Amino acid sequence: MRDRIGAIRSMMRSRGWDAVILTGNDPHASEYSAPRWRQVAWVSGYTGEGDLVITEDHAGLWTDTRYFIQAGRQLEGTGIELHKTRVQDQVLIPEWLSSHFAGYDEVVVAVDGLGMSALSVNEIRDAVGRDRTAIANVPDLLSPLWTDRPEIPRTPIITLGTETVGWSRHQKIVWLRKWLSDKGFDAILISALDEIAWLLNARGSDVAYNPVVISYLLVTLDTVQWFVRKGPLAEDDHETGDSFYELTADGVNIQDYSDIGMALAEMVDDDYIKRLFVDSSTLNHNLYRLLKENTPQDNVVAGKSPVALRKAVKNEVEIAGMREAHLEDGIAMERFLYWLETMVAAGEPLNEYECSAKLHEFRSEIEGFRGESFETISAYGPSAALPHYVTPEDGSSELYSNGLYLCDSGGQYLFGTTDITRTVPLGPCSQLEKEDYTLVLKGHIALSKVVFPKGTAGCQLDALARAPLWNSKRNFGHGTGHGVGFYLNVHEGPQDIRQSFNKQALLPGMVTSIEPGIYREGRHGIRHENLVLCVEAGENDFGRWLRFEPLTLCHFDTSIIVKDLLDDSEIKWLNEYNGRVFRTLSPRLPSDLSSWLRTKTLPI
Amino acid sequence: MRDRIGAIRSMMRSRGWDAVILTGNDPHASEYSAPRWRQVAWVSGYTGEGDLVITEDHAGLWTDTRYFIQAGRQLEGTGIELHKTRVQDQVLIPEWLSSHFAGYDEVVVAVDGLGMSALSVNEIRDAVGRDRTAIANVPDLLSPLWTDRPEIPRTPIITLGTETVGWSRHQKIVWLRKWLSDKGFDAILISALDEIAWLLNARGSDVAYNPVVISYLLVTLDTVQWFVRKGPLAEDDHETGDSFYELTADGVNIQDYSDIGMALAEMVDDDYIKRLFVDSSTLNHNLYRLLKENTPQDNVVAGKSPVALRKAVKNEVEIAGMREAHLEDGIAMERFLYWLETMVAAGEPLNEYECSAKLHEFRSEIEGFRGESFETISAYGPSAALPHYVTPEDGSSELYSNGLYLCDSGGQYLFGTTDITRTVPLGPCSQLEKEDYTLVLKGHIALSKVVFPKGTAGCQLDALARAPLWNSKRNFGHGTGHGVGFYLNVHEGPQDIRQSFNKQALLPGMVTSIEPGIYREGRHGIRHENLVLCVEAGENDFGRWLRFEPLTLCHFDTSIIVKDLLDDSEIKWLNEYNGRVFRTLSPRLPSDLSSWLRTKTLPI
Repeated sequence: MRDRIGAIRSMMRSRGWDAVILTGNDPHASEYSAPRWRQVAWVSGYTGEGDLVITEDHAGLWTDTRYFIQAGRQLEGTGIELHKTRVQDQVLIPEWLSSHFAGYDEVVVAVDGLGMSALSVNEIRDAVGRDRTAIANVPDLLSPLWTDRPEIPRTPIITLGTETVGWSRHQKIVWLRKWLSDKGFDAILISALDEIAWLLNARGSDVAYNPVVISYLLVTLDTVQWFVRKGPLAEDDHETGDSFYELTADGVNIQDYSDIGMALAEMVDDDYIKRLFVDSSTLNHNLYRLLKENTPQDNVVAGKSPVALRKAVKNEVEIAGMREAHLEDGIAMERFLYWLETMVAAGEPLNEYECSAKLHEFRSEIEGFRGESFETISAYGPSAALPHYVTPEDGSSELYSNGLYLCDSGGQYLFGTTDITRTVPLGPCSQLEKEDYTLVLKGHIALSKVVFPKGTAGCQLDALARAPLWNSKRNFGHGTGHGVGFYLNVHEGPQDIRQSFNKQALLPGMVTSIEPGIYREGRHGIRHENLVLCVEAGENDFGRWLRFEPLTLCHFDTSIIVKDLLDDSEIKWLNEYNGRVFRTLSPRLPSDLSSWLRTKTLPI
Repeated sequence: MRDRIGAIRSMMRSRGWDAVILTGNDPHASEYSAPRWRQVAWVSGYTGEGDLVITEDHAGLWTDTRYFIQAGRQLEGTGIELHKTRVQDQVLIPEWLSSHFAGYDEVVVAVDGLGMSALSVNEIRDAVGRDRTAIANVPDLLSPLWTDRPEIPRTPIITLGTETVGWSRHQKIVWLRKWLSDKGFDAILISALDEIAWLLNARGSDVAYNPVVISYLLVTLDTVQWFVRKGPLAEDDHETGDSFYELTADGVNIQDYSDIGMALAEMVDDDYIKRLFVDSSTLNHNLYRLLKENTPQDNVVAGKSPVALRKAVKNEVEIAGMREAHLEDGIAMERFLYWLETMVAAGEPLNEYECSAKLHEFRSEIEGFRGESFETISAYGPSAALPHYVTPEDGSSELYSNGLYLCDSGGQYLFGTTDITRTVPLGPCSQLEKEDYTLVLKGHIALSKVVFPKGTAGCQLDALARAPLWNSKRNFGHGTGHGVGFYLNVHEGPQDIRQSFNKQALLPGMVTSIEPGIYREGRHGIRHENLVLCVEAGENDFGRWLRFEPLTLCHFDTSIIVKDLLDDSEIKWLNEYNGRVFRTLSPRLPSDLSSWLRTKTLPI
């Protein structure tokens, strides 16, 4: 690792750079990057999220609370210093650069503009000072050193029909073009991969867990151009060939991924595009600069892509698919929990990784299963106290017949996406575990059963899931809920349920998680997570009302609930939910599992 | 009224104006204006809040939900059209002007820049189009027509000592100058009247209910200049003379109110002020323009005044005063409620106005009482369904021995400010009244007893007061809580508790109201309001905790509570609160009242 940093410093000296910023982001601001773009990991050996800054006399990694332990371990001996974010008195990269170069008349900061958004580069320039900062934009900055750098992924593409997604790609493009005309634009450049997948009704597996295709999409008032890694594909890759054929027949013009810059420049030069809309939160700095440098003032307008909101509001066909996915997923989960309880009761040796493998096995038996929607968190005891624990294949903890086991997992299905966390007792639990378990459930229920006025945003509801914990001075450090895609990213916007001041109202058709938790370092971690659908709840003198309907179908364990901590309405909700899980799943379960689930879901 | 609009239109024609915008605001963006600035009322006869736009062929009044009924009544026959705001599909003044003048190459909009903030004028220019909009800034625009226009008020001024306010004006100025130096400013112009009153430890009664002095304050690194209506005062006005003497002795340079513009221009010209800070949300357009036109780019910096936040966090002396004020005010309230119950039981004829007069009488007996902190809302039955009901002196409703009576009132005392709403049954109530009463109380208690993490903003707590109502599809259309000054404005920022996305965290020492309600047109209105102090609640592994401590001392009536709707912890809170009210007040009450209060506060 020290050699790699040394090589970067040589490059810096020869090019006259004062600092290099490296990220692990792909050119599309995706949550997960393909190996090609994991630059931070290549340089530092650290595999979590975070950004790296290298100067002549300092190498630092910036990452947040979730990764402090992992980063501390993986950076040991590298000479790279850990800079903590999301803590009080944090010093973020822009401010750090500003004070580090306080005395300098000129500062040259090199960035790989493919891995940074236009917004974040701007912040650096503003903080260090516009007058004295030169940004050297060097796409694929590491490529000269990283000789065995992986290629851009190119996986098979599949397309989804309207029987699955409801809206044809034609309908979606017509809708988008209307938006363009209404707003006075003549083109939109889409770089967010899930937005492209949604618009084209196409899926791939270029990125782990997210069924997307690395590409750009340019939609004008009369053309649709998809810049995608077509190139030669394996002989047996029929799917892809068919998909391209289908897309082409629908008027999608397939172009090569690497041609996006040139194509844009040409179209702008020819005055074919006069007013182009881009989303500056997902467009990378490299393309944004290219556009800004080649177009007159105001011809490129940056804003929030309309696709994100449209995609978040699921249509009837998607909702039906999501219900089906949750039914199948619920069966897999119940099979898993039954198996787990049986194994533990039998005293069979078992570790966290074997559990996640078993759950994968159950999900794999479902027709249409395409893989996990994120890396399964299978965590026993103290492991669960890390909200973003990664279960190691080697050396994961053994399970014992006491305390709590937490499993946060989800599946991608051709007809939907799931995300569920259950925390279950494996035997005797402490009073603190029982109380924590009950209070987190109390928060989960409070939000699950609330009725709220149309127009309410998630951050205006967040406190309902927290107050039961707050009132005994407990809390959790992550958001309460995130949007979930339809056979797409398990984390999507624009809505969320968290303390941020996100003004996006929750709308009927949106799918969101509800996942309060509690984490006690060295002891235990608890999280209760369902996905819920936002639905209409009638209208009266006070206006229109919405509520959440659970999509997730898997019982909550009632054996360690401290009943005194729940009020009657909460107990009623819990009994009804568990009852519905049993009624819905039992016809599909073998009799031993069905009997077991009946006892598990008896009213308390 | 039609004559007045006609006269304005003549003026418009002779001056070449296409539109005139009139407000009822004073030059300091105060909540209440002195009669001199009630331009909308003079032109239209309408006495509520709202703005007037007059063009050649249209006269319109823009106001919100609170005033629709009143505006509808008062505008009848004037030819002025009501434009509703805070409704779906609202068209605000800037957008309305934009579409009204859609075909025009040039639009001249005349404004009285004294009655509009720099921000609001900017919005109009942006909406109508910067290229074609000319703003004619005409201070005192109506004066040529409004021949008997009232003078700028000039009431006696008093000063408060450190034994009352904790911080001397010297300490406050030193603190403000440190802020100026830290931020690189050499002067701050303060136009918000409550900020001036706080900084100078001075009070007046130039504006109804708000104990402030119409003035501007300019603080530089070595001078304090107060631009105030000094002029000749009544012979017996010793207080004022003394106050000016004391202020002058403390280094406050007294200047005439009308000289502010000239003085600023001179100081800027002389380079005495190079970087001036102003608060663009309270500074009027007239002064802002004057400053901008006379200073080089960037020499006038607009932002949020630091005084508002500093003022909102009460010190120990102010807190002690607020407690004392609430003790005295609580006694007045209990005397009033006892009197009311006795009168109603005796079948004495009684109307809403007589009730508010009686409450005034009780408060007047308190030493240090300076008047109401806002206009008392004394409302029986359907009157209370209007959250901002104004109790008329003539023709207010009679009270009967059934249903609910609501009283929202507050006092200004030399040692604090109060604001309290109690809703009490005067006899038999309907089941709906009882349920509404209980659910509003449930919301009040949920917020009153919550413990929350340091850093939490009011909008992140608001839902706690609403969820008990939401869950049975009830709601209220106003905020849940507002900041309250110390012997100052009953509404102050920067914190609040409402659905807005105000990021200001609640801090220990802040005083805020908690006042959920419910309003059913033609039937009844309910509101339960206490003032609460934000206090520390300890620290643990999860961080630092805050909570609210009620300042208000007046029992909540328990006779119509539907006990099943409250859980044990809510009943416990209520019993403890009522018990504390009795224990605290009873030593100060006559025996008949004390006995009565004992029965009123018995645990349920």
